[in-house]
Amino acid sequence: MDLLDAIDDVSTRDWEAPDTEGTIRFAMVGCGWWTRQAAIPAVQGSDYCETTVAVSSSTEKASEVADEHDTIEAAITYDEFHDGAAADEYDAVYVCTPNALHLPYVETAADLGKAVLCEKPMEATAERAQQLVAAAERNPEPLYVGYRMQTDPVIRRTRDLVQSGALGKPIFVRGNMSQHLLDVIPDTDQWRLDPDLSGGTTLMDIGLYPLNTTRYLLDSDPTHGRANTEFDQASFSETGDEHVAFTLEFPDGATASCTASYGAYRSSSIRVLGTEGEVRIEPAFYPDEPRTIHLSTDGIEAEIDADQCNQMLAEFDYFGHCLLAGEKPHADARHGLVDVTIMDELYDSAEHGETVAYDF
Amino acid sequence: MDLLDAIDDVSTRDWEAPDTEGTIRFAMVGCGWWTRQAAIPAVQGSDYCETTVAVSSSTEKASEVADEHDTIEAAITYDEFHDGAAADEYDAVYVCTPNALHLPYVETAADLGKAVLCEKPMEATAERAQQLVAAAERNPEPLYVGYRMQTDPVIRRTRDLVQSGALGKPIFVRGNMSQHLLDVIPDTDQWRLDPDLSGGTTLMDIGLYPLNTTRYLLDSDPTHGRANTEFDQASFSETGDEHVAFTLEFPDGATASCTASYGAYRSSSIRVLGTEGEVRIEPAFYPDEPRTIHLSTDGIEAEIDADQCNQMLAEFDYFGHCLLAGEKPHADARHGLVDVTIMDELYDSAEHGETVAYDF
Repeated sequence: MDLLDAIDDVSTRDWEAPDTEGTIRFAMVGCGWWTRQAAIPAVQGSDYCETTVAVSSSTEKASEVADEHDTIEAAITYDEFHDGAAADEYDAVYVCTPNALHLPYVETAADLGKAVLCEKPMEATAERAQQLVAAAERNPEPLYVGYRMQTDPVIRRTRDLVQSGALGKPIFVRGNMSQHLLDVIPDTDQWRLDPDLSGGTTLMDIGLYPLNTTRYLLDSDPTHGRANTEFDQASFSETGDEHVAFTLEFPDGATASCTASYGAYRSSSIRVLGTEGEVRIEPAFYPDEPRTIHLSTDGIEAEIDADQCNQMLAEFDYFGHCLLAGEKPHADARHGLVDVTIMDELYDSAEHGETVAYDF
Repeated sequence: MDLLDAIDDVSTRDWEAPDTEGTIRFAMVGCGWWTRQAAIPAVQGSDYCETTVAVSSSTEKASEVADEHDTIEAAITYDEFHDGAAADEYDAVYVCTPNALHLPYVETAADLGKAVLCEKPMEATAERAQQLVAAAERNPEPLYVGYRMQTDPVIRRTRDLVQSGALGKPIFVRGNMSQHLLDVIPDTDQWRLDPDLSGGTTLMDIGLYPLNTTRYLLDSDPTHGRANTEFDQASFSETGDEHVAFTLEFPDGATASCTASYGAYRSSSIRVLGTEGEVRIEPAFYPDEPRTIHLSTDGIEAEIDADQCNQMLAEFDYFGHCLLAGEKPHADARHGLVDVTIMDELYDSAEHGETVAYDF
């Protein structure tokens, strides 16, 4: 049962080298709920990272965060960040602002020669994401896009399984991620609903999970895509995509059929059906629930349970480890650009009812 | 737990009235493997039906089938059938020929005033399906298209659940059906691979399962569709659809994302994600494996196991019961025409990369 052995270990960090020493000091740019409730607590548990600087719209907001954490030595405004304030106090920048504001902070980080962990999606439009790539590529320090699924051992083992050929040739990938946005964040004025700040709501924010995970599992980028979007709640009228279904065709003939909704019941799953077997991860994407890998091939029917994984901790540890070990993170700015380009074009497809072509 | 009670009974035939008496005598038109291995054995166990006539391409082939079954009183050729041979020996006709040959037998059945159980898909093209509707509608006896999923209590209870509103408004339906055609029927010259006889391979033959079941669960017909097809094995080069992925948009905003493959590992599932819950049937469509209904709504996480259902028996019993009780079967020729029209246009969509519009 080599196959089962291969995916049975759903906790090992296969990227981690023993005896990696040192600490990467982070400036947190943007102090919204995700930074405060997910990122900073994750970094507190990290072996390789600590939070030393808080950056927000006002000194008061930044100080409020700083006061909660002993490790934070400086609380500065966005303007002060751009002016290079407290630059000696951090080695890397975590950018967790609205999507359309990632670019200026990445540009400043490039000017300052700081490593960057940029939240996904990388920017709000393909044009801005392209500019972000330019900034990242003139920066001697690495930029990593925070695809926390990619650091999760459950996803990584599944990728190993798919890449091993144990399922035969992949034919279909099917994924979904859904929950009620306005229950999670009860604010109808939030930036995710403003197309100028987000570039789109559901596809950009959670459709990206099945999308990027498909690319990651297949280790391939699509050639064609199409999508349709719908909305029921008035709050989604400006971006139009409360619900989105999209299909991506890959060069070797695999097709991904994915859905995402910020108005549907919470659910997440991804599955790969190959010529010789199928693997399904369900639940798949939410960090607060244990996941199960369901594997079916000739002669094997298996369910492998995996504990919860603090994906944000894994993400910070992975990037911190990369920086300390001098390794290049997998999801660089060009990897992030591909997703933003795909989604930008999928919105066009939804608007015009036509298949769009990609050339990656 | 009214909700669980509602779907817990996955064996009751909700269409069956007690004390329905009588027997419908069937002529089996087409004596291929499905008729011999699935239909005739199912009818042997039926409370309402029996097989009395075998119709095939030659007297020898028909007699071979007749010799295997005591109830079969006449063995005739297709030509003899068209001439009205043995018409006193049967009340209804089961049409199980290649798709593109359904029409002439339905037309003859109409001329003879015989009820018809026509295999799905109803015909090979929308144009021929339209002609079949005309024949069915001049026939005083009913025509039923053999959607065996629709007589399966597992699917029927799930439909009740969806229609009850317990999952809220349906947002996404996702379904798949796949297996290796050439393992099941090891013949590269079979009619399913000949576009003139089949109208298409995978979508027509098994893509129809998630397609029709989606329509049935939602009790709705789509307004728009799009598809892509792929093939790897040379045997599928003429129809082009070894693998198919299709998306259907419904008038109330629900979207179905479905896949089917005759080259992928055997798998089948269908799920409905609503605003307030999700139901998944997996396995879903193959008659020889027990199914499980997975239900998730606020406060309820349930798995309801269902025994295997002899769907062909349920189908014949349902239609026989309808005829004896004077009831109209659900899936009539117009219902079947909708599927053939959808699929016809989906093949166009796959060819041209464009969304197609429906007006049902």
